[in-house]
Amino acid sequence: MLETRKATLFIVATPLGNPADLSPRAAATLADAAVVLAEDTRRTGMLLKACGVTARRLMSSHEHNEEGRVRQVLAWLGEGLDVALVSDAGTPLLADPGYRIVRAAREAGHPVSPVAGPSAVAAALSAAGLAPYPFSFLGFPPRSAGEARELFARFGATGATLVFFERKNRLGDTLAAALAALGDRECVLCREMTKTFEEFLPGKLSEFAGRDLELLGEVTVVVGPGALGRCDEAAARAVLAEEAAAGGKPREAARRAAMRLSGWTVKELYAMLTDREHD
Amino acid sequence: MLETRKATLFIVATPLGNPADLSPRAAATLADAAVVLAEDTRRTGMLLKACGVTARRLMSSHEHNEEGRVRQVLAWLGEGLDVALVSDAGTPLLADPGYRIVRAAREAGHPVSPVAGPSAVAAALSAAGLAPYPFSFLGFPPRSAGEARELFARFGATGATLVFFERKNRLGDTLAAALAALGDRECVLCREMTKTFEEFLPGKLSEFAGRDLELLGEVTVVVGPGALGRCDEAAARAVLAEEAAAGGKPREAARRAAMRLSGWTVKELYAMLTDREHD
Repeated sequence: MLETRKATLFIVATPLGNPADLSPRAAATLADAAVVLAEDTRRTGMLLKACGVTARRLMSSHEHNEEGRVRQVLAWLGEGLDVALVSDAGTPLLADPGYRIVRAAREAGHPVSPVAGPSAVAAALSAAGLAPYPFSFLGFPPRSAGEARELFARFGATGATLVFFERKNRLGDTLAAALAALGDRECVLCREMTKTFEEFLPGKLSEFAGRDLELLGEVTVVVGPGALGRCDEAAARAVLAEEAAAGGKPREAARRAAMRLSGWTVKELYAMLTDREHD
Repeated sequence: MLETRKATLFIVATPLGNPADLSPRAAATLADAAVVLAEDTRRTGMLLKACGVTARRLMSSHEHNEEGRVRQVLAWLGEGLDVALVSDAGTPLLADPGYRIVRAAREAGHPVSPVAGPSAVAAALSAAGLAPYPFSFLGFPPRSAGEARELFARFGATGATLVFFERKNRLGDTLAAALAALGDRECVLCREMTKTFEEFLPGKLSEFAGRDLELLGEVTVVVGPGALGRCDEAAARAVLAEEAAAGGKPREAARRAAMRLSGWTVKELYAMLTDREHD
């Protein structure tokens, strides 16, 4: 009896801009799949050409036709045909459509397999020079300043590093919303990553907020950890002092402070507090 | 006059387990760099061999000698020598050492450039079949159950999808802490990604919490969005109904609900509320 491999939905990461970042396995998967589903077939067609890969069939799948594609993908997989899903650049789904297709394939019992490769989020965090984790990724923040502020405030409260994408004409306004919600944190604007004009612009949010940054194009923004982040011991001491002043046993004060402080343990704070009390 | 390129610190992503995931540019960068800094030189040596790459000089850089390596890296870069930094697997720094080296190189004015490639975080999110963003990555959660609960509770409050790494002997306990802090969310345990025995185990946190999961080895855990996440419309409607019952104008209720709901805009909630009122 012949054992047949089950048809698989491959989620294939593609380069952020440099064709030499396409892995041999990604190239082989895109060449072998019965269908390659791309956000923009023209863009993916150019990438495949640059990498010397010929797809057997290249079709579009984007947020406006995803619902219909779900049925087709399930039909292809049911017929034993492998399908590869790509986005315009990087790892699909992270801020792109495709989630409904992946979910439907899994629920129908088909294997879904990641062909790991470039991700703008990971690349930016690895090279920005800001504390890389814990971090939260926010996709493209909402266009309304009020809603963007709310989003930044909610994730900012964790004290974590934040990563988001923004388009050139929105960048100054979105950074102004970040400044209003997060205070004047460190940030790095990452543009043209992996390409000839790759650039990392470090600064404080206040240096970029509200300015005309249209020349920068689309960027990946990394915002460093907040005052409650694990890296700022002075902020930890201040919060701890507040909680100690509020009364109760030192361990209780340390516990309450730990609830407010990202990355600081009750034990560390208790030690800090009792050390100080021995001064 | 000869223009000389400034020596660069390359942050090179390497395969999660499948050598065919190393990109041509990553292979070339590792072969060309004067020094390759690896967490574990034996492990990276094996990878390079499997990929047919010969490093000019392979040295260790891990959390216990990072401080000393900082000075050496600055000296090499100062002499015009390119340095490549890798971790055991995936994109360096995301849950690995290396941050101090990157930061010091940037502060000294040397270019730091990411060679984008595999990341377990991105791979897991792209294929797990849970809403992929917004998400927060927590690294390896703390060993103490109380501290792990605090961490999960802090990030859980945003309603976002969560990703973390865990080792086999700690997995059941850490998932129990997640269950206590987050409630019974959906999750997917991702193991051996990109390798022969790749496996995605979907379930609810309660199905895995506290169990002996030692056989699974090291896993990447994806926990789906909470009741306040963007994907659960029923939860959004429930929160909205609460806020509407609390009184005030519909727009105010929508605004208060948006503060509690991740990924739902005031506009969407206002539309939901006023639609309902027309019923």
